[in-house]
Amino acid sequence: MSPLQMPPAPACAFASDNAAGAHPLVLDAIVRANEGHALAYGADAWTKESEARFSDLFGPTSSSLLVWNGTGANVMALAAMIRPADCIVCSQWAHIAVDETGAPERVLGTKLLTMPSTDGKLVPEQLDELEHLIGVQHHAQPGVVSITQSTELGMVYTADEVAALCDAAHRLGMKVHLDGARIANATAALGGTAAALRSFTVDAGVDVVSFGGTKAGIAFGEAVVFLDPELARRAMFIRKQVTQLPSKMRFIAAQFNALLADDLWIRLAQHSNGLATRLYESTKDIAGVTYDAAPQVNSVFPILPPQLIEPLQNWCFFWPWDVSRDQVRWMTAWDTTADDVDRFAAGVRAICTTT
Amino acid sequence: MSPLQMPPAPACAFASDNAAGAHPLVLDAIVRANEGHALAYGADAWTKESEARFSDLFGPTSSSLLVWNGTGANVMALAAMIRPADCIVCSQWAHIAVDETGAPERVLGTKLLTMPSTDGKLVPEQLDELEHLIGVQHHAQPGVVSITQSTELGMVYTADEVAALCDAAHRLGMKVHLDGARIANATAALGGTAAALRSFTVDAGVDVVSFGGTKAGIAFGEAVVFLDPELARRAMFIRKQVTQLPSKMRFIAAQFNALLADDLWIRLAQHSNGLATRLYESTKDIAGVTYDAAPQVNSVFPILPPQLIEPLQNWCFFWPWDVSRDQVRWMTAWDTTADDVDRFAAGVRAICTTT
Amino acid sequence: MSPLQMPPAPACAFASDNAAGAHPLVLDAIVRANEGHALAYGADAWTKESEARFSDLFGPTSSSLLVWNGTGANVMALAAMIRPADCIVCSQWAHIAVDETGAPERVLGTKLLTMPSTDGKLVPEQLDELEHLIGVQHHAQPGVVSITQSTELGMVYTADEVAALCDAAHRLGMKVHLDGARIANATAALGGTAAALRSFTVDAGVDVVSFGGTKAGIAFGEAVVFLDPELARRAMFIRKQVTQLPSKMRFIAAQFNALLADDLWIRLAQHSNGLATRLYESTKDIAGVTYDAAPQVNSVFPILPPQLIEPLQNWCFFWPWDVSRDQVRWMTAWDTTADDVDRFAAGVRAICTTT
Amino acid sequence: MSPLQMPPAPACAFASDNAAGAHPLVLDAIVRANEGHALAYGADAWTKESEARFSDLFGPTSSSLLVWNGTGANVMALAAMIRPADCIVCSQWAHIAVDETGAPERVLGTKLLTMPSTDGKLVPEQLDELEHLIGVQHHAQPGVVSITQSTELGMVYTADEVAALCDAAHRLGMKVHLDGARIANATAALGGTAAALRSFTVDAGVDVVSFGGTKAGIAFGEAVVFLDPELARRAMFIRKQVTQLPSKMRFIAAQFNALLADDLWIRLAQHSNGLATRLYESTKDIAGVTYDAAPQVNSVFPILPPQLIEPLQNWCFFWPWDVSRDQVRWMTAWDTTADDVDRFAAGVRAICTTT
Repeated sequence: MSPLQMPPAPACAFASDNAAGAHPLVLDAIVRANEGHALAYGADAWTKESEARFSDLFGPTSSSLLVWNGTGANVMALAAMIRPADCIVCSQWAHIAVDETGAPERVLGTKLLTMPSTDGKLVPEQLDELEHLIGVQHHAQPGVVSITQSTELGMVYTADEVAALCDAAHRLGMKVHLDGARIANATAALGGTAAALRSFTVDAGVDVVSFGGTKAGIAFGEAVVFLDPELARRAMFIRKQVTQLPSKMRFIAAQFNALLADDLWIRLAQHSNGLATRLYESTKDIAGVTYDAAPQVNSVFPILPPQLIEPLQNWCFFWPWDVSRDQVRWMTAWDTTADDVDRFAAGVRAICTTT
Repeated sequence: MSPLQMPPAPACAFASDNAAGAHPLVLDAIVRANEGHALAYGADAWTKESEARFSDLFGPTSSSLLVWNGTGANVMALAAMIRPADCIVCSQWAHIAVDETGAPERVLGTKLLTMPSTDGKLVPEQLDELEHLIGVQHHAQPGVVSITQSTELGMVYTADEVAALCDAAHRLGMKVHLDGARIANATAALGGTAAALRSFTVDAGVDVVSFGGTKAGIAFGEAVVFLDPELARRAMFIRKQVTQLPSKMRFIAAQFNALLADDLWIRLAQHSNGLATRLYESTKDIAGVTYDAAPQVNSVFPILPPQLIEPLQNWCFFWPWDVSRDQVRWMTAWDTTADDVDRFAAGVRAICTTT
Repeated sequence: MSPLQMPPAPACAFASDNAAGAHPLVLDAIVRANEGHALAYGADAWTKESEARFSDLFGPTSSSLLVWNGTGANVMALAAMIRPADCIVCSQWAHIAVDETGAPERVLGTKLLTMPSTDGKLVPEQLDELEHLIGVQHHAQPGVVSITQSTELGMVYTADEVAALCDAAHRLGMKVHLDGARIANATAALGGTAAALRSFTVDAGVDVVSFGGTKAGIAFGEAVVFLDPELARRAMFIRKQVTQLPSKMRFIAAQFNALLADDLWIRLAQHSNGLATRLYESTKDIAGVTYDAAPQVNSVFPILPPQLIEPLQNWCFFWPWDVSRDQVRWMTAWDTTADDVDRFAAGVRAICTTT
Repeated sequence: MSPLQMPPAPACAFASDNAAGAHPLVLDAIVRANEGHALAYGADAWTKESEARFSDLFGPTSSSLLVWNGTGANVMALAAMIRPADCIVCSQWAHIAVDETGAPERVLGTKLLTMPSTDGKLVPEQLDELEHLIGVQHHAQPGVVSITQSTELGMVYTADEVAALCDAAHRLGMKVHLDGARIANATAALGGTAAALRSFTVDAGVDVVSFGGTKAGIAFGEAVVFLDPELARRAMFIRKQVTQLPSKMRFIAAQFNALLADDLWIRLAQHSNGLATRLYESTKDIAGVTYDAAPQVNSVFPILPPQLIEPLQNWCFFWPWDVSRDQVRWMTAWDTTADDVDRFAAGVRAICTTT
């Protein structure tokens, strides 16, 4: 096939939601925050406002700390949750286990116990079977379960599913961490309201949340939200100790303030989720394209004819996923447009049908 | 004294250079970088440009990696430099030893061996006396010396002093790290040219530099520059492992590109250094104000009548330094103005002479 | 079934080889070493002799360091082998992954990447498939593969199998650690000579060996043997840093000297291996007892009628293995006797046939 | 001076108390414990007895865990005591800070904050001045103070001094660790009874004790005794995680049982303490020999004519202490004899008076 036969490429590729920049309102917030002096390390008005906004979302006994990035949010959250000789239980697909270059093991000194999963979700029975480890001096003790919402494979836990996991964990004396790098997309998928957010976090019994900002539409920044106040007690010190204390913190806080205002974070996630569905719908019938499941959030994981993957990437970039299955990942972002999706689907159709 | 008798307070306080925002050219660079999609984690054009700019400064065998903040830069640099059972030698005033909440010990698992110093500078003889530790299995082995330029007490190592320290360190098989959180101010103090920068880094034998951006006029971001190529080999992985890999890296790179262009970083540091001297000159003769030394960079450390410190802070905030001596710190920033200095000096004079 | 119907229990149970004490010659060596003063931390004649004995076994470029226990030997060996951001690859059954309470993760700060295995052995293809991780900054880098010889499931790698693993590892730039907690049993199984030992260690390309003493017939003590001299360079300091430097080291060295003299270690292992085979042969035909495989070293892993496990344990203790399959472990030691085996087999037969 | 003029050297040198072997009763206990099988990892009768013996000493709410060595005891004790972002406060002479190759920093990931001291003892005022660190996010938080009894310089805290330190520590929310590598010598110096031991531990408010065995007369082994039951809760897992769980634990327990029976540990310490005093008394008047202080336990720290140190070491070995002052250390052990002391004193006198 000649590349000349391809339709025009989309303006945005489908590589990742972290390839997008910041939403205009967020960028504007950065610009407006750049006025005069403000004390560093969080002693500023923007940070105070962000704390109030997170308290509005998660309730008055919650507390939040801003950090730089997702790896840092997870490591800092977990550092506040673990006891010596604990292990952290997570799915085999968990970002903390697979994509953080061993940061948790290094900074926490803690074993990650990975459990099998096809969609990145854990089930309570997997926690139940850990009971035999408890009290045995030769085994790291199950201390924390970390779940990803939405998962690395684009699936969403229902509120009931999270609640059942929290129950199972708490029965064993474990704490629950929710890696919400894409918590906005999950919230959008589960109803698109603050109540939906609370249903699978506070109400479900989650103890600590990594609340993602970067993939939701800001330039940089994440928040760690402590729902269990006891776990928050040492968190401020731990943040600095794990290198995650921002100096001119107003520049993160201002972005979150813009993102959280008027549910912008939910609306952007509804947009990107919707476009992933549009992409799925407009490609699922193409000969050669197969899917395991319909998308729940902002990514689809099609299996493609292997010889077409590289030409398609050269035309409009995306990442491989499971090479052994010729599975790739197409991901939408807050700034992806319906036109991008339609052009991309047209390109896939063209390449699949003409070769 | 009634607060009503005080002159108008300056527009900028003298708390710290990290209380300032970003320079307008830097802010503009952020805004311009926010266009369309760019692959995350450094695979973007802005990062490529920043690498070229740092290579221009430090030579073709150097390499640079962008990180979030100063603690992260230092921890990441040191992580690439240490061997197991090494210790890191630094002054008793070193930021890594005093102000990072034990981040080096936690993330590196390494002892910091602090040495006495009155101005934050080490001398080669202090390294020489470590020789008896080498080869003794009961002692952590001197592996890295970390010096701060300019020091936490506002002093500057000459190029010859750094070279002598590097020689002493290398004779013992040690590596040299330079914590350059205020490397711009030191460069300005030592001549204000790229050649001056090289004289106390590459030419002096330094192995790895933490190159500060935040305090030099950007919103956030630091660089770790490897002058010893061997130490750079694993650095990319270490950056991620210590939680310091920025996702949308273009937003750090674009700021550095603006800061490094046309020597903006040097000019801003010359400005803030000059205003610290102006502040020193206009207060040193005030009765009750005494100084240990004239400023070399952008901070002064006066000793004040103790009962005046709090009223003065209430009027225009600054931080205490050595409480036992009634010593405080006044620090200028890239956006401090001569008018700010003159107003502040007038306030100090007013409060000291009327009480 | 009434317990009264059971035959007399064996003098030794089949719980573990670490339930046995020290061989009389070893105990005698402790007693004889307790004469007068000897400098601590290895500066004594017994340690010098032990070093010579290990050099005789592993060749003149090898070097050995004595440590307290198996966890310590493994942690110390691995600490000398890993680079920052490395991971350690091992089987899902590896003692370092399962039975050391997260000691490697804590003391090394390193991820363990466990791979599926039915018998505790890895195959070279499992290393080959790690190649895609290498150079990707988001993944811990495959740095060391740790294999257990004999494995936790009583299986033995042939020399060729170890060599193939070493080749695969070295092709990827990885180092090879051999956890030889039961290296004596493996040596006995593979020929029972020093040449056999060398065939699956030095000659096969292994880089560092944990050489087990405790399970081979001494009271306490293990050795870490460095076959790659480069990896030995910092080992002395690391030993102390990971808390594994014995003070009155003569008491470990003297035991090893007795164990290694006249191939006592091999003869004891031949004895215990032989009795495991005898136990297998005398129980494999009992109705209700099934085996996955014949024993290669000093343990068998029968599957038993579930209701008989506890009565049998009460009569003569042993540990469960895989509870989900009703699989248990019977292990012989250097001091198990043929009479013990025969009595035990008789008891198993009695309980299986009368109930 | 010709070496021929020297009197006969003592049978035991004065290098260290860890150059001595095990007391005959202890050795006998090892031999007697080597009978038949006993479950590993502490599930044996000897360990149960040792637990009862330590409970008798320290009271019914205390608990004890046996470990391999002093570095391990300290690291394990501290691991059970610290919280994230804590620092450990100790004297500049503390063994944990100076002589453990950075083991605490590596295994704990924790900063050690060393404080000046001339005799290895801390005073409460040194803790009081840490109060300004508490709650400041940039500083590691004072979490534990570790004191050494008797100190590395041979000095003993009185019970009142320990109690005052404990009060100061507890006021700040800190816990107190007592490194008792030579707790027997301190007990002997403070009255030589179990009540004396309790006076400076339980009664004084100490939270965790490292109870030394090796230097008190056994071959190997230390105990960690938890006086605060809350801190003991995770200790069993931590012991294994820091590589300090002995496999055939009976061989440590049996030694402690012999050492603790009939106050043998106190009697041996009284013996070695007395001989240090005898050595001091018989050398203090020798021209050229000067002392800072009379000995309180089993070591003296004379300052010698520099040119005589090496000849004297060649005649009968001992270690240098503070080279800058020509200060050395002579240490007695449980098996030093009055004749050894008298011969050694005669040799010192001979070399000092004939040269």
